Amino acid sequence: MNSRRSASPDIEALARDLRAGHHAALARAITLIESRRGDHQAAARDLVQRLLSETGKAIRVGITGSPGVGKSTTIDALGMSLIERGHKVAVLAVDPSSARTGGSILGDKTRMARLSASDKAYIRPSPASGTLGGVAAKTREAMLLCEAAGFDVVLVETVGIGQSETAVCDMTDFFLALMLPGAGDELQGIKKGLVELADMIAVNKADGDNIKRANLAAGEYRGALHILSPRSEHWHPPVVTYSALTGKGIDTLWQNVLDHRTAMNASGEFAARRQQQQVKWMWSMLEQLTMTRLRSDASVRAKVKRIEAEVASGRVSPALAAEQISGML
Amino acid sequence: MNSRRSASPDIEALARDLRAGHHAALARAITLIESRRGDHQAAARDLVQRLLSETGKAIRVGITGSPGVGKSTTIDALGMSLIERGHKVAVLAVDPSSARTGGSILGDKTRMARLSASDKAYIRPSPASGTLGGVAAKTREAMLLCEAAGFDVVLVETVGIGQSETAVCDMTDFFLALMLPGAGDELQGIKKGLVELADMIAVNKADGDNIKRANLAAGEYRGALHILSPRSEHWHPPVVTYSALTGKGIDTLWQNVLDHRTAMNASGEFAARRQQQQVKWMWSMLEQLTMTRLRSDASVRAKVKRIEAEVASGRVSPALAAEQISGML
Repeated sequence: MNSRRSASPDIEALARDLRAGHHAALARAITLIESRRGDHQAAARDLVQRLLSETGKAIRVGITGSPGVGKSTTIDALGMSLIERGHKVAVLAVDPSSARTGGSILGDKTRMARLSASDKAYIRPSPASGTLGGVAAKTREAMLLCEAAGFDVVLVETVGIGQSETAVCDMTDFFLALMLPGAGDELQGIKKGLVELADMIAVNKADGDNIKRANLAAGEYRGALHILSPRSEHWHPPVVTYSALTGKGIDTLWQNVLDHRTAMNASGEFAARRQQQQVKWMWSMLEQLTMTRLRSDASVRAKVKRIEAEVASGRVSPALAAEQISGML
Repeated sequence: MNSRRSASPDIEALARDLRAGHHAALARAITLIESRRGDHQAAARDLVQRLLSETGKAIRVGITGSPGVGKSTTIDALGMSLIERGHKVAVLAVDPSSARTGGSILGDKTRMARLSASDKAYIRPSPASGTLGGVAAKTREAMLLCEAAGFDVVLVETVGIGQSETAVCDMTDFFLALMLPGAGDELQGIKKGLVELADMIAVNKADGDNIKRANLAAGEYRGALHILSPRSEHWHPPVVTYSALTGKGIDTLWQNVLDHRTAMNASGEFAARRQQQQVKWMWSMLEQLTMTRLRSDASVRAKVKRIEAEVASGRVSPALAAEQISGML
């Protein structure tokens, strides 16, 4: 990091450039959010607070899928289709396992060839951080900045490791699960937690020889979802097929996102979900702050680690351990 | 509460009587855990820490099911069957909606007529508390006390409201979901979150005219579970039918619990799950402590409520709000 970047930035100017939609300003602002320096974090809080009234207007869509499902190709195709409709599209990621390298950024741009070449799109790789909570917090704030910069669709992708899908679901309005075709025993299992989160299941690669298998897979997923209570009585998650390669079905994907929004707006669930998410973010960020405090000092960190080990081995009760850790805050 | 109860209890004597398996001592100890008085809470932490090495030996089974599924009849039948095998059975509950009344206790005893009459069983209703976190924390500690008192099977029932099933799953080794028979469109939906948690689905009322319908329901549940990835590669949740009324199938229920334990022990997952649970309890209790601090003072409580409202309405960013609340701790 060079010295100009390290200097405390002029938040007012940054906010102005960001509002004007300058990609470079947006990138600098997200870098500020991702910084671990105390003064940068204070400046980032200030920046987000200033821009807050200009956030919240995008359609926020979470997208999950195992490696190989064609997530990047799908986002590239969907993103280009949205740009043709006049949208500005931001693509963010929550990947707690990612190491932040030039290669990773280059990788994202290569994987989304058309979208990365468009000035109506902004692609940002996952922040690197030790914990999912930290990664998710930074991505949530990056999303707010993208909205303030005029992006009216935000796509948040995740690789579906551990709890990252829940984190992405908690920051988006619609959660889309991508699947591969397959039939019978070849059909890959749906991760159980995913079933609870998905607002739609979309089977990719419904093209050429795969169309029949994709339809079979969709039927099996429909059967599995059939006897599960939907999260909302106003939305039964559809199962659709599409092809990111040919573009067939991409419009239907988006139509479902819009239909979902219409239904959620009509029932009042849209506003309620956003409000609940915001309050949940607040408590989650309080937890982050607490954890940061416990990690910032080496001797405290060592003590917490020792107490954790004693709890795991059954020598100290969780209640006593919590009391001990609480005393260190 | 009379003055003798309010007096700071002699923890050493209480621990001794509890170890000897006196039900009255166990009841007093759990009451101590449930007390909100600071000195009682300190005494309770001391008590649990003293008894900690004598805990952890029970088979811990969580049982969920909607009202009307026959949960109490099932626990009564299963509990009596276990007592006949030489076990001592404790029955606890996590019901965040319960108000602690004499009527509620009487209700539990009436609902489990045979079990409540046995001196090999101990039945305790759900602690009353404002939050699920609080109820769960107290039930976890009550479970440890039951183990120290010599109960080698602990059944924790929950009504399945909101997140209470996750809380019970997080404190038990095996999570059993009870269902009613039904067929086709009559089949009640499985709550989505439940699918992720259940180690077994058991369809009750497989007796008389209902046998066919129970088998049909079991088949549908099997179909739904079929394409979901199991939580462990060493355990695929079975779907069984039984009748709490006739007792048919109750032994099979328990055999599955034992088979699960054997499989989890062989793979090392049993010990790993218990350790993870304990560490998770610790962090959860730290959160409880923090929330208690924020609620204990009326002016702090009012401030937190106002900040929450500002976050919900989008006037204050979650990060800034977390910083403000953190400053009050």
